[in-house]
Amino acid sequence: MGLIVQKFGGSSVADVEGVFRVAQRVVETYKEGNSVIVVVSAQGDTTDELIAKAAQINENPSKREMDVLLSTGEQISMSLLAMAIEKLGFPVVSLTGWQVGIRTDSHHAVARIRKINTERLKKELDSRRIVIVAGFQGINKYDDITTLGRGGSDTTAVSIAAAMHADVCQIFTDVDGVYTADPRIVKDARKLNDISYDEMLELASLGANVLHNRSVELALKYNVKLEVRSSFNKEEGTSVKEVSQVEKMLVRGVTRDNNTARISVVNIEDTPGKAFKIFSLLAKEDINVDVILQSIGRENTKDISFTVDKSNLEAAIKILNDNLEYIGASDVKYDKNISKVSVVGAGMTSNPGVAALMFEALYDAGVNIQMISTSEIKISVLIDEKDAERAVQIIHSKFNLA
Amino acid sequence: MGLIVQKFGGSSVADVEGVFRVAQRVVETYKEGNSVIVVVSAQGDTTDELIAKAAQINENPSKREMDVLLSTGEQISMSLLAMAIEKLGFPVVSLTGWQVGIRTDSHHAVARIRKINTERLKKELDSRRIVIVAGFQGINKYDDITTLGRGGSDTTAVSIAAAMHADVCQIFTDVDGVYTADPRIVKDARKLNDISYDEMLELASLGANVLHNRSVELALKYNVKLEVRSSFNKEEGTSVKEVSQVEKMLVRGVTRDNNTARISVVNIEDTPGKAFKIFSLLAKEDINVDVILQSIGRENTKDISFTVDKSNLEAAIKILNDNLEYIGASDVKYDKNISKVSVVGAGMTSNPGVAALMFEALYDAGVNIQMISTSEIKISVLIDEKDAERAVQIIHSKFNLA
Repeated sequence: MGLIVQKFGGSSVADVEGVFRVAQRVVETYKEGNSVIVVVSAQGDTTDELIAKAAQINENPSKREMDVLLSTGEQISMSLLAMAIEKLGFPVVSLTGWQVGIRTDSHHAVARIRKINTERLKKELDSRRIVIVAGFQGINKYDDITTLGRGGSDTTAVSIAAAMHADVCQIFTDVDGVYTADPRIVKDARKLNDISYDEMLELASLGANVLHNRSVELALKYNVKLEVRSSFNKEEGTSVKEVSQVEKMLVRGVTRDNNTARISVVNIEDTPGKAFKIFSLLAKEDINVDVILQSIGRENTKDISFTVDKSNLEAAIKILNDNLEYIGASDVKYDKNISKVSVVGAGMTSNPGVAALMFEALYDAGVNIQMISTSEIKISVLIDEKDAERAVQIIHSKFNLA
Repeated sequence: MGLIVQKFGGSSVADVEGVFRVAQRVVETYKEGNSVIVVVSAQGDTTDELIAKAAQINENPSKREMDVLLSTGEQISMSLLAMAIEKLGFPVVSLTGWQVGIRTDSHHAVARIRKINTERLKKELDSRRIVIVAGFQGINKYDDITTLGRGGSDTTAVSIAAAMHADVCQIFTDVDGVYTADPRIVKDARKLNDISYDEMLELASLGANVLHNRSVELALKYNVKLEVRSSFNKEEGTSVKEVSQVEKMLVRGVTRDNNTARISVVNIEDTPGKAFKIFSLLAKEDINVDVILQSIGRENTKDISFTVDKSNLEAAIKILNDNLEYIGASDVKYDKNISKVSVVGAGMTSNPGVAALMFEALYDAGVNIQMISTSEIKISVLIDEKDAERAVQIIHSKFNLA
């Protein structure tokens, strides 16, 4: 008996059957004597449909109005889930972002949560109601509606768990838990029973598609116990917590991220401040940059290459081309057909052999490496998209992860 | 130059073309130097689609959650209209009911506006922004979302016009103005250039389908100048104001309301308090009652008949049947196939001949009258639904309204 936050994604509540499966799950947790807060995303394709509706009117609407529009998706799904729980005969109330008091900064479309007011949530839980909260949304200091960007509902769930000091935050998804690699690519991939925040953070950032990295960062910061579980079965799932290398495994998983694109700004004058100009232009447009690589170009110039989310590619190229003169470069090139393949594991830091083993695997497979990026607990390579599946399989096998 | 509130219904913004037609209209008003607040309903069939979505989950959801669901309809249409105005290059901001601060009572689904906070509206108008407001919705004292029931967006528009002391509140609809009768039924019906609040109030209550009666009541109470105009052309429309019988016409119009149903509670013991019991039961369920008629039944009993909106019929019959013993009656009967046909005109009070002329017209046409109800400025009869069109035509001609 305790306070449990459960988050269900859009595919879990896509249809009537799904809504009732989720309702049943929530009610079971409640009947065990727990207080339950449920965070829910928009149903199935609702968000895409709303985006299409907007595109018919204005191909470049303000982000403020887009947030007003998109936030209705979660409001619809939360009320339908509440109605399903009412139908099962249990007390329930649904709350939007502003009703909970989820305060964010003013970066529309990619807002970050600043503060969560717990008063209303506590009041409803004290009345023994199941509380459904709209994921993905909040309000800024002007009371304008904001949305949290990709993985926003995960962030909502973890933030609420942190603010309410919940015993656990359960993220329900369409997979059983966190695997050593994507089971659709690697047949003998193995489910991990537990994983550390740091490892999960790298896996999340690298396209494991299970948990969004911002939610893992928050869980780490506020020490929220996370569980990744399937909304379709009762398997145990994967626990994310401060584990001390229980399984003594050097490398915990291999991931692939196809959602990345490479941009190169070429023939930049070799004077100070160029990198600052490029990345501050991108930051102003709220475009996040991942791997960055600077190389020497021809005749006293340099090239700066970096990766961005594919969804930001067009905007990034436009802002760079519009400012070529200001930056002092000759050209902007890009490549959409790349993948980022990474190995992750907390045990890597003290073992230089890991990188060598990974590169050996790629060499065996004849895969060309375009860029390399490393951190304390991961090694990422950018390679041609067509080689990515094969690369993941070979690395998974090279590290004996099965 | 002044402050103009414009209200557009769901059919006006049903598709992309409609959204831009409305945007153009709003922008023209703004370009003339006016401050403009636009109140908008949900697009076309959105509300019906949301109701159908809910019915798949729970055929009897709580009204609170239904309001959460339905209020998304206006939030979608207001953001799309804002995007269209952005596309035309004008400054605009859309605001939900809670963002404006539209405070209502707690009668979900039929809430009444208590107070409108003008701070945010004034701030946006001071910045010379066009302000789009979601119609039909508000919040109660618990910050729960409420909806205002049928004609709710008209009510929102008039309430905002009153609170902001607007120069005029323009209601855009799919007809040119207020007619002496429905032009689809009576070929030679005539458009009225102006009409008094009282007359409009009766016409609205009686199914003229142009303006909702609550909005006319409010306009009268706060002396808001109303205009009914077509959203499809630039015709002058009809002005609603305190006119002193400019046209010296006894009867201003004939209306028909098919949305009414008759209920009879029969064989009620003839002791005091029975009517109180019946109508307080209905009031508790937020069911409005219109024409009431009490007649003497058999053997020291009485019958009480009254009309309700068709949408309330089922609920009304259930509550009455559940309480037959408490009421002390034997049976509840009903008839859905009735129409209310009415003549309206401020000049009627001092002329008893009006009723006689109306009844004569119905007698000529062989139409049987089931119930009669009169007020200062209207006479209504309940008749068989199949006779209604013919009755309207004959009365219109009898009073020489063409």
